[in-house]
Amino acid sequence: MAPSTALFTDHYELTMLQAALRSGAAHRRSVFELFPRRLPEGRRYGVVAGVGRALDAMEAFRFDDETLAALGGVVDGPTLDWLASYRFSGDVWGYAEGEAYFPYSPLMIVESSFAEAVLLETLLLSIYNHDSAVASAASRMTLAAGDRPCIEMGSRRTHEDAAVAAARAAYVAGFTASSNLAARQRYGVPTTGTSAHSFTLLHDTEADAFRAQVASLGTGTTLLVDTYDVAEAVRQAVEVAGPGLGAVRLDSGDLAVLATEVRAQLDALGATSTRIIVTSDLDEYAIAALAAAPVDGYGVGTELVTGSGHPTCGFVYKLVARASDAGEMVSVAKRSVDKASIGGRKYALRRLTSNGVAEAEVIGIGQRPDDDGDDRELLVPLVRDGEVVGRESLEAARARHLASRAELPVAVQQMSRGEPAIPTVHE
Amino acid sequence: MAPSTALFTDHYELTMLQAALRSGAAHRRSVFELFPRRLPEGRRYGVVAGVGRALDAMEAFRFDDETLAALGGVVDGPTLDWLASYRFSGDVWGYAEGEAYFPYSPLMIVESSFAEAVLLETLLLSIYNHDSAVASAASRMTLAAGDRPCIEMGSRRTHEDAAVAAARAAYVAGFTASSNLAARQRYGVPTTGTSAHSFTLLHDTEADAFRAQVASLGTGTTLLVDTYDVAEAVRQAVEVAGPGLGAVRLDSGDLAVLATEVRAQLDALGATSTRIIVTSDLDEYAIAALAAAPVDGYGVGTELVTGSGHPTCGFVYKLVARASDAGEMVSVAKRSVDKASIGGRKYALRRLTSNGVAEAEVIGIGQRPDDDGDDRELLVPLVRDGEVVGRESLEAARARHLASRAELPVAVQQMSRGEPAIPTVHE
Repeated sequence: MAPSTALFTDHYELTMLQAALRSGAAHRRSVFELFPRRLPEGRRYGVVAGVGRALDAMEAFRFDDETLAALGGVVDGPTLDWLASYRFSGDVWGYAEGEAYFPYSPLMIVESSFAEAVLLETLLLSIYNHDSAVASAASRMTLAAGDRPCIEMGSRRTHEDAAVAAARAAYVAGFTASSNLAARQRYGVPTTGTSAHSFTLLHDTEADAFRAQVASLGTGTTLLVDTYDVAEAVRQAVEVAGPGLGAVRLDSGDLAVLATEVRAQLDALGATSTRIIVTSDLDEYAIAALAAAPVDGYGVGTELVTGSGHPTCGFVYKLVARASDAGEMVSVAKRSVDKASIGGRKYALRRLTSNGVAEAEVIGIGQRPDDDGDDRELLVPLVRDGEVVGRESLEAARARHLASRAELPVAVQQMSRGEPAIPTVHE
Repeated sequence: MAPSTALFTDHYELTMLQAALRSGAAHRRSVFELFPRRLPEGRRYGVVAGVGRALDAMEAFRFDDETLAALGGVVDGPTLDWLASYRFSGDVWGYAEGEAYFPYSPLMIVESSFAEAVLLETLLLSIYNHDSAVASAASRMTLAAGDRPCIEMGSRRTHEDAAVAAARAAYVAGFTASSNLAARQRYGVPTTGTSAHSFTLLHDTEADAFRAQVASLGTGTTLLVDTYDVAEAVRQAVEVAGPGLGAVRLDSGDLAVLATEVRAQLDALGATSTRIIVTSDLDEYAIAALAAAPVDGYGVGTELVTGSGHPTCGFVYKLVARASDAGEMVSVAKRSVDKASIGGRKYALRRLTSNGVAEAEVIGIGQRPDDDGDDRELLVPLVRDGEVVGRESLEAARARHLASRAELPVAVQQMSRGEPAIPTVHE
């Protein structure tokens, strides 16, 4: 059984539970929504990721003996007793993984008792805020890269577990592979990798290092050619591996200039199919700037795992409706000055032109109207009566992302800052 | 036994191992150093965190059957055989947890065979890059807050496991508590928390919610007073809890103005010892700006867990020396254009004035000279012959941070961008 996820939770979720159990309000039927108030400044769309991880984490959200023992001093005995039999028994709907999102898109709707639903707040937000931040950055990078592959290699620049989730999110958003071996094990993300400068420095000469690598990994390998002098390294690389050398990697300097020089040198040496992979603090802007350079693939690290300037999405999880004593559902919303939210349970549609191009994110309260033939329904069932029903393969999420992005107006292809690609329309 | 950490590793560490095992170079004695090339732009110092987590992770770095099974297709049979008996047997020295650092500070020095040491690269960097980024931001926040407590509450804005490490790192850097229950369980970080807007909205009236909270959590609790109208909420809060109410929380609006109004109202109601806690996208600048406002504590979320604009430290892990065939240690360094490093194993000292104020980070190659009486040694033994010797309590790291920060020039108290507080001197 997976380890319990129940302590990935803020203290106050538990004290609220205690107080609400005592007042009796804990059992009121409640609807929470997880949504963004805005996109990161200048971004034209966001990408939902983490849905599959959230479903796994909800299934593992239970208060076993070890977990309960850790809550001594946090809540009282009656609350611990209630937690011991906790099991989410409600319903969840949400945007499917890989879908584009816009301001106020109701990415997840959780309906259950207040007690059951409030406890999930911190964990669901952690997963969605992190994974969607990475996927949103990744999608812009794969868009800028066009047909050239992007490889995720940022594990070392983020928390070791976050790195695994980042590799997964990047894959959803079109990256072709990752360096992260735990992502391969947990999620089947393809991994790839060759060598670092330390491998060259370990050997007495660069040629020794190349020979060692080719002897073990074959001529299809990628040789790192910028430890000392690039032109000399490229010459030796082809001498050692022959013109069938798989690829060379450049990790420093002016990549556009170097790639052009290296391409010419490789071609002159007959290594016309040897690919050039570039790495070194790439982001979507650097990738776009290299579009005209003879580059065959991008390795992206830091900027991917840190969301390219936006390491979190700022999603919130708000109570939008709850039952009254009479059992009727009542819309609720706070009126805080700069953080108002909209009460009532939402539906969400992507309005499309007759050519299938997205033109609005339509969000309304209550039931979806009947007369909206071309609008695409965005909410799918994820959990029904406590059972996960929305699990799908990572490949399905990956395919959905490509389709969802392709549906957006061409403006999304601009890397420059701007308004959301489509307006959010509250019906 | 803790789960294996061996797959929190880049694919290329394993393929380099394979190639080096075949060439024989894998067994060369090697020295790797983990260090920053620079501080984040404008920062005056950094804070080392994650040391204790790194030691735990190294102990759990092993290739059990499940881990080896996951490496099928990554490396060949002889490499898997070698990995099966992997155990780090070398020595590690490093800056102790909580210590301040500067450009090129050798935060960790790993000496072992190339094979043993190279495999640790990704995991050590993940932990140090993440935890130190959070601690470095946290330290500026606690500095800006002065005697007022800072509470970490950013779990929901970062990956669920990163959140636990962030709570730990913030505690090292002077935060007094966290919202994160897993950090309480794993590391003994004190936790605290009261209620969210959803708790108020769940009840029929704000007064009902206050009554429910006070009935369950006592008058010492913190009531959230900005769901509807602040002045009305404060009036009701004191009416419900009495003038002994522990605290009120403000989570929106102009906090300086509101805090002043609320303080006056509380005092007029006789609640002169009721504290005012503020939250809402605080960072070190916002905390500094509230210094003159009647605020009693800061809850910090997003900007803490995302490193306040610098979510990663950019530490690198470089081979600086390795044995030749003759067994002599040779200094090595790459010459890449913009990423040069300095070969040879380092010592590191903090040079102090006769008044005990730091004036330079002194980094040299080889043995520390004898004649430097007032310089403080920065490297402590962490692992000896594969056994962890540098484990210490979180309280010790917390105390060290306070002492280390107090030793820095007063310039660090400026929140504005600037140069590192002390220069790095290469001897």
